[in-house]
Amino acid sequence: MTVRIEISEVGPRDGLQNIAPVMPTAAKRAWIAAEHAAGVPEIEVGSFVPASLLPQLADTAELVAFARTLPGLNVAVLVPNVRGAAAAIEAGAHKITLPVSASETHSLRNVRRTQAQMIDQAAEIARLVADVPEETRPRFEAGISTAFGCTLEGAVPEDRVVALAERLVAAGCDEVGLADTSGYANPVQVKRLLRRVRATVGAERCAGVHLHNTRGLGLANALAALEEGITTLDSSLSGLGGCPFAPGASGNIVTEDLVFMLEAMGLETGVDLPALLKVREILRDALPGVELYGFTADAGLPKA
Amino acid sequence: MTVRIEISEVGPRDGLQNIAPVMPTAAKRAWIAAEHAAGVPEIEVGSFVPASLLPQLADTAELVAFARTLPGLNVAVLVPNVRGAAAAIEAGAHKITLPVSASETHSLRNVRRTQAQMIDQAAEIARLVADVPEETRPRFEAGISTAFGCTLEGAVPEDRVVALAERLVAAGCDEVGLADTSGYANPVQVKRLLRRVRATVGAERCAGVHLHNTRGLGLANALAALEEGITTLDSSLSGLGGCPFAPGASGNIVTEDLVFMLEAMGLETGVDLPALLKVREILRDALPGVELYGFTADAGLPKA
Repeated sequence: MTVRIEISEVGPRDGLQNIAPVMPTAAKRAWIAAEHAAGVPEIEVGSFVPASLLPQLADTAELVAFARTLPGLNVAVLVPNVRGAAAAIEAGAHKITLPVSASETHSLRNVRRTQAQMIDQAAEIARLVADVPEETRPRFEAGISTAFGCTLEGAVPEDRVVALAERLVAAGCDEVGLADTSGYANPVQVKRLLRRVRATVGAERCAGVHLHNTRGLGLANALAALEEGITTLDSSLSGLGGCPFAPGASGNIVTEDLVFMLEAMGLETGVDLPALLKVREILRDALPGVELYGFTADAGLPKA
Repeated sequence: MTVRIEISEVGPRDGLQNIAPVMPTAAKRAWIAAEHAAGVPEIEVGSFVPASLLPQLADTAELVAFARTLPGLNVAVLVPNVRGAAAAIEAGAHKITLPVSASETHSLRNVRRTQAQMIDQAAEIARLVADVPEETRPRFEAGISTAFGCTLEGAVPEDRVVALAERLVAAGCDEVGLADTSGYANPVQVKRLLRRVRATVGAERCAGVHLHNTRGLGLANALAALEEGITTLDSSLSGLGGCPFAPGASGNIVTEDLVFMLEAMGLETGVDLPALLKVREILRDALPGVELYGFTADAGLPKA
């Protein structure tokens, strides 16, 4: 039996928010449409944050509306708070992710709220979501950022991550995902922490991870996560976005390389890799001078 | 108990033979000395091939003599045939590796001999090695190249690799290593093939792998190999050398990123990573314009 792994493309949100140039909405639409056509099942199209903070993502509502017209696509957005979640529900997003940082310092820096305040936000969002009629109700996920370490605090105690996951599920989140925001994770840690969190909240409530390739370990960490039973992996086309804390360093794991690895391993992604590789041209044209990562694109596909 | 993993630095051989510029011998000595000082336990310093074929490696005998003066360093060389092995023994190398290709087409292209002829070479080299007094006898390894696939033939049947490993051990090789010459391997395949080869020839006779990062899977494949019990990993400082079959594509896995991963996982390498990262400067100075790979160098080490 072939195992199905869901690729969640986060480039239009995580990639674009970490680079200076603003991608025109038309190019974003072309990008989203092309990845959908290549078979990517879920795309995080933006974030409902004030345009003054992230002008790169000011067109998120428009992109949700567009992405909803693409048959079968799971349309995801990030929201930093209740107000953003209300906007996401209004726009009709299928999946809403609230980032909640395991590091208190990072939480204050990232969303200007403490972890406790963010858990309150999660509870309020869960109530909003519950009020949506079941047939159009979005899935509500909390993304535990800095779960594997923090550029500001250093090591993050695993007990804190496990307790946070438990509280977020108690607050009404459908799911918690672990995010290696700063590229600190290693495969042993990924396995150990996933095992603990999944044992605590239930495996079905922790099915996804968000990994970065900051120190080159992204796909090794993805392999470790797969071996623990993870079935959803976030990634970014061309690893777009880099790492905001280390100029020149890479950020999200590269969708193209991830798909190559999964398909080579005999896992099913539903993604047409040659078609996906062509989508890089949209980024190259719309974002001149921005570094595109990824090894498979340079090397080409192996001889069949 | 901490598991010890041996890093075998192959940059001075595999890295340099795949780039056009010839590195001055003085720079090679500085490189080898600096990696030894950083704690790298084994370095493949060159290859005993005719200088007319690979002028980059013409100083191999001199480098073996120099590397032997570095306390505790395991001095390795590649040899393409019996003549090279005789020169390696004469020079006093501690480890001799004969590449034997699982792909017949690659064998003819790489060493102008069939696989059967290479097995004969292996048997003859084993006799030469056996004639060396035990206290100075080098270890003789066969490296099975294209073990995971071949740019010329495509897929390589696993039965052929297993049978080749068996024949090489029967011919007198102390050890066989599996090499992903063209970056075709994936983690599932690495595990499956290692399990078969180790079950056939004995785990202690197949303790090392030589992986490339051509499509970004290098460290994921290394993780898979570690999980199968592999304890020696080849890598190249800065991923030097690229992939000769795909211009612009990367080659060997990057020593710096590999050491970062292993140490982060709690495995012991004996390597001082900050010292290792500084060795890149020798490459940058001696090989201007040559691309240096590696993510850890760009991102820096995590906050402790």
